[in-house]
Amino acid sequence: MSMKEVLKLVGLGALAVTLGVECLDWLARRLWPGRGSHGPLNEVLFFPSPPACVEHLFTPARTLPCSCSLPHGVETSFGKMLGHVLSAKVSLDLCVFSFSHVELCRAVLLLHSRGIAVRVLTDADYMLITGSQIGALRRAGICVRHDVSNAVHMHHKFALVDRRKLITGSLNWTLTAVQSNKENVMVTEEPDLVPPYQKEFESLWEASDPGKRHPHSFSQSDFSGHAA
Amino acid sequence: MSMKEVLKLVGLGALAVTLGVECLDWLARRLWPGRGSHGPLNEVLFFPSPPACVEHLFTPARTLPCSCSLPHGVETSFGKMLGHVLSAKVSLDLCVFSFSHVELCRAVLLLHSRGIAVRVLTDADYMLITGSQIGALRRAGICVRHDVSNAVHMHHKFALVDRRKLITGSLNWTLTAVQSNKENVMVTEEPDLVPPYQKEFESLWEASDPGKRHPHSFSQSDFSGHAA
Repeated sequence: MSMKEVLKLVGLGALAVTLGVECLDWLARRLWPGRGSHGPLNEVLFFPSPPACVEHLFTPARTLPCSCSLPHGVETSFGKMLGHVLSAKVSLDLCVFSFSHVELCRAVLLLHSRGIAVRVLTDADYMLITGSQIGALRRAGICVRHDVSNAVHMHHKFALVDRRKLITGSLNWTLTAVQSNKENVMVTEEPDLVPPYQKEFESLWEASDPGKRHPHSFSQSDFSGHAA
Repeated sequence: MSMKEVLKLVGLGALAVTLGVECLDWLARRLWPGRGSHGPLNEVLFFPSPPACVEHLFTPARTLPCSCSLPHGVETSFGKMLGHVLSAKVSLDLCVFSFSHVELCRAVLLLHSRGIAVRVLTDADYMLITGSQIGALRRAGICVRHDVSNAVHMHHKFALVDRRKLITGSLNWTLTAVQSNKENVMVTEEPDLVPPYQKEFESLWEASDPGKRHPHSFSQSDFSGHAA
């Protein structure tokens, strides 16, 4: 075989491989839109989400069907969001203004019980409202910090799963937000979007360290012992 | 020149072009991170944003320096956000829970005066609070609709610029959110993320059409004429 024929063969081979890869890529994007081989996960969820059973997300190995009165086998925005939270394998960094949703609290407690590193940052005022789940998280031993800056509110509503998946949007982690409000939640693994949120979380976490509070941020009663 | 030499030359030429493009691409990503030739715009802004003059964004052709007392020449998160809003050339679709920020209102009014198609969708309760700019938008002739569904709140905080740039996050369009809260705003042109928000906007806009309200959603007094 002459050199010319070898070069021709190599050229045609390269062309065939390129076309094959392009076809497979096209097929992948058709079959899994939003998660094609071209890009990372990008999913948008809108609320309100209708009430539906999410027991299968907590106990996927369960053999008996759930007997609760909620609709079963329904895929909802909330179910998808909960699935993303429960997908954590290493860490969950949560930065949320208001957290009173019982099932989301159950998910966070479950992750903690599995040994996943959970950090929760919340608003100083809203963590005290009726129905807040912050107390339950703290009682379970989860490290919770609240904003101690001069900000009026720590109004974020984002979560970072394994430092690579960002869940963010307008939705507070409350039942009203999930079932009654018009809300949006974006789930993304975009490498341009996730790191800034992780960096902001680390910065806020550091700034909310109770051990590093400046003395004059304590009130007089903090130093008055039993005399108060 | 023999065929073998021609093929060799073409091969080397192709290699040189490929390497050149890769080098330019690498350079572009180093010089403009987040807007490399590899991907669409993705920018994350965090708040609170310090007060600073934004007059240059409204009147870029102005020759005299602004004489206001705010700091000048400071690039802030709010300035960047405002710049994105003002970048609209064709349309602005705004879906926001609470809108009382005067400079953001001024931006929306300016876009409207330039003939840009502005649509504003807001929350029925929050559009009536003290300081709300919704009345000013309506008086200027901007089409404003409010949520008429059974939702407790229309809690979104997103804007679509020219149907291709999405501005979304935790931030309501208020002075407290901009200057006093811990907030996040994401600006993205990701083709996986923008269309779902545009679709949701169209759906909410349609559902909030006052001309299409179901008769029984009116109260009895709506039909009682002067007898009320």
